[in-house]
Amino acid sequence: MDRNQLTEEESSRRVNIMGLLLNCAVFLLVVIVCSGWQDDGNYDGRLSDSDPISLWPLPQKIQISAVAFKLSASSFQISHAKESSAGPGCNLLQNAFRRYFEYMFGSVKNEAKPRKKVFSSELTELQVWITSADPECDGYPSLKSDESYELSVDQPSAVLKASNVWGALRGLETFSQLVYEDDYGVNIINKTSIVDFPRFAHRGILLDTSRHYLPLRVILANLEAMAMNKYNVFHWHIVDDPSFPYFSRTFPELSQKGAFHPYTHVYTPADVKMVIEFARMRGIRVIPEFDTPGHTQSWGKGQKDLLTPCYSGSSPSGTFGPVNPILNTTYEFMGRFFKEVSTMFPDAYVHLGGDEVDFSCWKSNPDIQKFMEEHGFGHDYSKLESYYIQRLLDIVSSTNKGYMIWQEVFDNGVKLKLDTLIHVWMGNKAQYETETARVTAAGFHALLSTPWYLNYISYGQDWHDIYTADPQSFNGTEEQKKLVIGGEACLWGEYVDATNLTPRLWPRASAVAERLWSDKDVKDIGNAYGRLAQHRCRMVQRGIPAEPLFVGYCRHEYKGL
Amino acid sequence: MDRNQLTEEESSRRVNIMGLLLNCAVFLLVVIVCSGWQDDGNYDGRLSDSDPISLWPLPQKIQISAVAFKLSASSFQISHAKESSAGPGCNLLQNAFRRYFEYMFGSVKNEAKPRKKVFSSELTELQVWITSADPECDGYPSLKSDESYELSVDQPSAVLKASNVWGALRGLETFSQLVYEDDYGVNIINKTSIVDFPRFAHRGILLDTSRHYLPLRVILANLEAMAMNKYNVFHWHIVDDPSFPYFSRTFPELSQKGAFHPYTHVYTPADVKMVIEFARMRGIRVIPEFDTPGHTQSWGKGQKDLLTPCYSGSSPSGTFGPVNPILNTTYEFMGRFFKEVSTMFPDAYVHLGGDEVDFSCWKSNPDIQKFMEEHGFGHDYSKLESYYIQRLLDIVSSTNKGYMIWQEVFDNGVKLKLDTLIHVWMGNKAQYETETARVTAAGFHALLSTPWYLNYISYGQDWHDIYTADPQSFNGTEEQKKLVIGGEACLWGEYVDATNLTPRLWPRASAVAERLWSDKDVKDIGNAYGRLAQHRCRMVQRGIPAEPLFVGYCRHEYKGL
Repeated sequence: MDRNQLTEEESSRRVNIMGLLLNCAVFLLVVIVCSGWQDDGNYDGRLSDSDPISLWPLPQKIQISAVAFKLSASSFQISHAKESSAGPGCNLLQNAFRRYFEYMFGSVKNEAKPRKKVFSSELTELQVWITSADPECDGYPSLKSDESYELSVDQPSAVLKASNVWGALRGLETFSQLVYEDDYGVNIINKTSIVDFPRFAHRGILLDTSRHYLPLRVILANLEAMAMNKYNVFHWHIVDDPSFPYFSRTFPELSQKGAFHPYTHVYTPADVKMVIEFARMRGIRVIPEFDTPGHTQSWGKGQKDLLTPCYSGSSPSGTFGPVNPILNTTYEFMGRFFKEVSTMFPDAYVHLGGDEVDFSCWKSNPDIQKFMEEHGFGHDYSKLESYYIQRLLDIVSSTNKGYMIWQEVFDNGVKLKLDTLIHVWMGNKAQYETETARVTAAGFHALLSTPWYLNYISYGQDWHDIYTADPQSFNGTEEQKKLVIGGEACLWGEYVDATNLTPRLWPRASAVAERLWSDKDVKDIGNAYGRLAQHRCRMVQRGIPAEPLFVGYCRHEYKGL
Repeated sequence: MDRNQLTEEESSRRVNIMGLLLNCAVFLLVVIVCSGWQDDGNYDGRLSDSDPISLWPLPQKIQISAVAFKLSASSFQISHAKESSAGPGCNLLQNAFRRYFEYMFGSVKNEAKPRKKVFSSELTELQVWITSADPECDGYPSLKSDESYELSVDQPSAVLKASNVWGALRGLETFSQLVYEDDYGVNIINKTSIVDFPRFAHRGILLDTSRHYLPLRVILANLEAMAMNKYNVFHWHIVDDPSFPYFSRTFPELSQKGAFHPYTHVYTPADVKMVIEFARMRGIRVIPEFDTPGHTQSWGKGQKDLLTPCYSGSSPSGTFGPVNPILNTTYEFMGRFFKEVSTMFPDAYVHLGGDEVDFSCWKSNPDIQKFMEEHGFGHDYSKLESYYIQRLLDIVSSTNKGYMIWQEVFDNGVKLKLDTLIHVWMGNKAQYETETARVTAAGFHALLSTPWYLNYISYGQDWHDIYTADPQSFNGTEEQKKLVIGGEACLWGEYVDATNLTPRLWPRASAVAERLWSDKDVKDIGNAYGRLAQHRCRMVQRGIPAEPLFVGYCRHEYKGL
């Protein structure tokens, strides 16, 4: 058999890959370049996770041609197009160029002087062309950021066109995913044309650093993995009942007393800044959550009188409940605290929590009872909760932040600004669909998380259900559907820490990533399996210990422990 | 408050720890040495995984006294007792001394000259005293090895007494677990007396290197973790349907064609030797499993005519079934193959599998049908299976190995030697208890795995069920109970590879370890929780990414990714 011909197995495998691309492609003709060495029976396709070309999440429109180019570390470069509004002074892009060069070629150094002789079948350049006057090199991504891009891979240069750096980052990821190794280890890319944009503007991951402290390197590694999956929001559930690792300059006692350890288990301002900058470099927003009035046991250790004293009969029991909503000192504290938060975190939104408030302690406390009476709340403690939240929202609004809140705040009828993001997390499928319909019918923006609580695990390929859930699958008008701005995968921290977080999250969170980025019709599990298996091998090769989907192997297995 | 006094919280916490030790202790009096710095509220006991002293698995008899000694890296040494039959020439012990020194003191070097001045409250020496004439320094552990030891921690020297190196290894692990850091970071050990021995002789872990290839470093790291949990058998399920990573000198085509990759995804003879020696150094036997006649798809790629051709109607379908039991070439192959295996693996046992044989391919094949007729098997294909197994057992017996087999071989009535180990793995609790009763009633030795398939996962603290299962909980005589020689935790490889294997296995496998080592009455979940949480933090500190049991933290969090 001619080694330059495809084996039957390879042909069928590639037709299969291309079949899925066809779903979205206007034009498609593929005969992938020469291959050999696979006809010895060791790569039988069935078990291999290392087929070439796997795009994840799948772009909106793709054309891949038969023509293929080689890439060489010694001659290939990523550069700024002449017409681009960004240049070498754009640190964010320079940083991304280096990162993607390393993903494609390993850590080999680009030679100072590219070699003169270039083969006709070689691609030597990717030009990045930022079209809008302000490339936003030094800005922060936002809910309104334009992440669309167009990518044309052809000679003499591949061109990546985007209105600003955020789209360019997404396009660089796609470009790097188009590059594959042939059987000689040569990097290959096909002539390709892509037009791409996200289906939803808010595509997030929640990590919980209160139930277990996550060392910085774990957070940073997951930001890397998020960029590989075109996620754009890191929802940092930074404090909760078990610990308060956020070091507050204004109230240092909060972490001094409330963290698992005041030095080794806290996030200093420098740490927080590093996370935000690392995320910004990857087009990822950092939205901190400071959940009140419940989930605040750890706050009480460093802030006297903040929590409600619970009573046993007529005397204090020594335990404490939610934030005490009847004291002026509470609101003074919140004012100063959220003032600091608003300057520490540049994003336009802060998540205020508001979930799972247990009323039993409030009920036990005679001062609270008196307050309820005075304010005509009767025995409806959700009115007291609303009273607290209302005042908190006014405080946060005064810092010029928008807010996200868990669905209970909406359910309890708290008066909310129309730009509030309602985070849906409760119930089964029917329940979260009903909730999303209600939220959007009321004119609010909705975010879905219910089907994406990735802390829940089960035996087998549980990514199927994760993949098939859709934030817009509810009864509602087109207007309502448009109010759904995306969703978040949540990894609550009861059972995860630095030892197991990353493989538990990836590639399961990749399934959510495709749902939130790609066209709604991209939903075939079989097609997804092949690409996702390869995508996870790519993450592994890039140093992310993403766990396997099923039996098989990666050409480059995980090198850490 | 005097910083040298215990806080109330600390006292109660320690009483709690000691309460559980009391279960097994003849004499107990504990007032742990000075502590400070904890009365600031950051260590509230509830959430801390880092309390001092946690023995896992719990020794058989313990006395811990109030008297405590300091240990210093610069003066402490582990040495051979004058009366010991082992000395510095015993490489296994020297290696263990270094390993446990590093666990206790980190990688700081022991000063060449211990300092002269020693404080009266200091312990400067652990003497290891091997009492039998042959310490077995260069031997391999076996099913009959004596792993008992006695440990006395007192001045002027702690003494660890064991009949041979295998007991000494277990005692060194226990000694290292007795050492804890006080709040100043000083290493402390209490005056202690321990008499210890395992409840069961066979305490194993099965890893599967066929469904995913496991790099050597993953196998070695898990051998380290096994030693920390007093496991003594590594059941290496080395090949199976998906891949054949064992490099056979006699039949190199098996891995050349049957491995995921012929170079990067195989275990060479040097690799296998390294695993065996690394295991031996830790008192761990390596029992390879070469499962036939089913589970052999990968064998067929490199060995022509080994598998049964399946038929579709009157012609071969192109697919293959189990090993072909009707050809003499099959038995010639097996003879040569197991001859090699018997020299490569020093253990007295080899696991021959024999599970899940699918008869449909045999049924479809006209040559097999004819053979069945000739041998008067009728349509009972389990008779054909027995015919194969019988011949295979004769072959393996001729290499002077004993064998382990999965329960089906016993269930199908194959004639077995009385020293055969029957591995129970099927059914629910009632079913595996019945099976164990049947196996032992027939006079065979039994090993339990059914409740310990750790590849199955679920949300939450699934170690509870793992912990409470007991290999002797079946209806049978005392004689029958004695025939149960232990059990194995199995981690089948469908969903695990280098990225996630270690945290998925640990500390869940630790629960099995205590069941198999400690007294049968050690079974209180609450007691176990506290010790296990600390034990997992110890594993983490030693570099094993064992996952958390629940909310909390370790003083020394995982340093890898």
